[in-house]
Amino acid sequence: MKFLTNEKLVISGAAGMIGSNMAQTAIMMGLSSNICLYDVYLPGLEGVVEELRHCAFPGVNITFTDKVEEAFKDAKYMVSSGGAPRKAGMTREDLLVGNAKIAEQLGKDIKTYCPDLKHCVIIFNPADITGLVTLVYSGLKPSQITTLAALDSTRLQSALAKHFGIAQDKVTTARTYGGHGEQMAVFASTAKVDGKPLTDIIGTPALTDEQWAQMKQDVIKGGAKIIELRGRSSFQSPSFVSIEMIGAAMGGEKFEWPAGCYVNNSQFQNVMMAGCYVNNSQFQNVMMAMPSTIDATGVHYTDVKGTATEMADIEASYKHLQAMRDEVISLGVLPAVSEWKKYNPNL
Amino acid sequence: MKFLTNEKLVISGAAGMIGSNMAQTAIMMGLSSNICLYDVYLPGLEGVVEELRHCAFPGVNITFTDKVEEAFKDAKYMVSSGGAPRKAGMTREDLLVGNAKIAEQLGKDIKTYCPDLKHCVIIFNPADITGLVTLVYSGLKPSQITTLAALDSTRLQSALAKHFGIAQDKVTTARTYGGHGEQMAVFASTAKVDGKPLTDIIGTPALTDEQWAQMKQDVIKGGAKIIELRGRSSFQSPSFVSIEMIGAAMGGEKFEWPAGCYVNNSQFQNVMMAGCYVNNSQFQNVMMAMPSTIDATGVHYTDVKGTATEMADIEASYKHLQAMRDEVISLGVLPAVSEWKKYNPNL
Repeated sequence: MKFLTNEKLVISGAAGMIGSNMAQTAIMMGLSSNICLYDVYLPGLEGVVEELRHCAFPGVNITFTDKVEEAFKDAKYMVSSGGAPRKAGMTREDLLVGNAKIAEQLGKDIKTYCPDLKHCVIIFNPADITGLVTLVYSGLKPSQITTLAALDSTRLQSALAKHFGIAQDKVTTARTYGGHGEQMAVFASTAKVDGKPLTDIIGTPALTDEQWAQMKQDVIKGGAKIIELRGRSSFQSPSFVSIEMIGAAMGGEKFEWPAGCYVNNSQFQNVMMAGCYVNNSQFQNVMMAMPSTIDATGVHYTDVKGTATEMADIEASYKHLQAMRDEVISLGVLPAVSEWKKYNPNL
Repeated sequence: MKFLTNEKLVISGAAGMIGSNMAQTAIMMGLSSNICLYDVYLPGLEGVVEELRHCAFPGVNITFTDKVEEAFKDAKYMVSSGGAPRKAGMTREDLLVGNAKIAEQLGKDIKTYCPDLKHCVIIFNPADITGLVTLVYSGLKPSQITTLAALDSTRLQSALAKHFGIAQDKVTTARTYGGHGEQMAVFASTAKVDGKPLTDIIGTPALTDEQWAQMKQDVIKGGAKIIELRGRSSFQSPSFVSIEMIGAAMGGEKFEWPAGCYVNNSQFQNVMMAGCYVNNSQFQNVMMAMPSTIDATGVHYTDVKGTATEMADIEASYKHLQAMRDEVISLGVLPAVSEWKKYNPNL
């Protein structure tokens, strides 16, 4: 079997449903011949490794450990699904603080054990916050950390294709930007339906304003719908897409869906660009889904462009992300923005 | 994305853990651009389809239905994991009868809705029986139905590699034959460890007779070990390997691990062949793991060869399979062997 690289790829949280699917997916995609599975729950981890060994993948060396120093040593690429799920009795704040603290430790562990890590994809929720916290504490460059945000865009693509009864890939550049939660901004102006701009279709009988409003809600609640249907959180799509992301960073096919990435100094001028109204604002010091590309040099983003309504939506999403970030700061998990440079000179 | 074919591939039992992984694996392997997911549990099925759509695989048309006539229509390839799991209070016989009846219906549905099916892989337990029952009622040729049996061999390969501390693929042609259950025959004489015959190593300090006896037990109990470790039945390895099997039948890479296949008129002469004692016996009218290859023309097997002990083991496994088959006949699910030709002229 051919692999992109033999540099060490670490799957963190590999005993879970997402982690174990990520491991299988990464091997099937031929990303690295050197895969290390890490989880604090050793029996489950060993079970996953046994399953993968029973697949008899040729040419891959699968190691596993519940010791972070062993797992992260010499790691060059990492995907982390290693957060705690929300449990009965936990408030949203409990989850936020709990997973932010896990992200803090993850960042510190990266700094301690694998400062030469080339790229890390974070997928535990709220990913916008956990990715940001990991970035601050890891000392990595902003181009080296991404969070999973693309599922909102693929859900929009899927919903549009279903509505129009066409092949899914006939819907192109369907995009959501901003936060990866209820405050995401679902865009219309980027998408084309079988070559035709979506904005030309919305408001016609083919897709009424009401239908479009409902579709946006369905996209936003796409994750909840999976829980309703399957009786469990989605795990196949987060696994597959996050492995596509790390694969791109490893030199595989470029990843063109929006990635959550650290945004700073993005300045929008109050002009018309590409036919769209562009607002005068700045997104600073947050992680959010942006028009972006991941390749072997990391993640790179461009300014968000959209209609006035869309720009208002993304401003609202941005403000929500700022508020959540500031909540984590006030809870003492993250230092004040002005202090970040002390922790990470790359910020 | 490139696919081997656009002929219809049906995943039956697609709402479950195995079925949903099979669907993802089949798409990732690029088997067919035309995949139909079938399950009687529609909400779970829809959840799986949503997840796969959120992966945004280009070029594949994923359909789904809970109606067998719609699912099987024009199907050319099929993998079925659609049995019922053993539940609390069920006896072994309950499970046997229940899944044999599901296999009977599956066979009848194939005959009714997709008599032109080219290959079907059956993976619900006891697969030796469910595969046989499906074959009898489907009217397909013996070369067109296989059952998942390879995991016993891959588990042996994995166990040997772990014991000797070498890469898994340095252990070659590790094989188990016969039944896919406690009565399997774990062979030593086929395997090589880093090029050295395993039989030259067993009984030396490198692998004592006691260690080998224990390893055989561990292989036989490999599935139970996964339940112990993960708290759930294995699903990744059955999915991956069964999709490798159907992929081979679809013209992909040949599948060389043992497949469960219908065995008849296999005659062993009482001679020494390839350095191994070959017994004088016949395996007739059962499904069992054999030295086999699956390619675009179906499954083809050769005689089992082994040491005297191994041949005694496979004889015992064969007798066990015969007894289980005769139990299903006596329970009225399967007609008497002498009647099979009336149901399936290919037998």
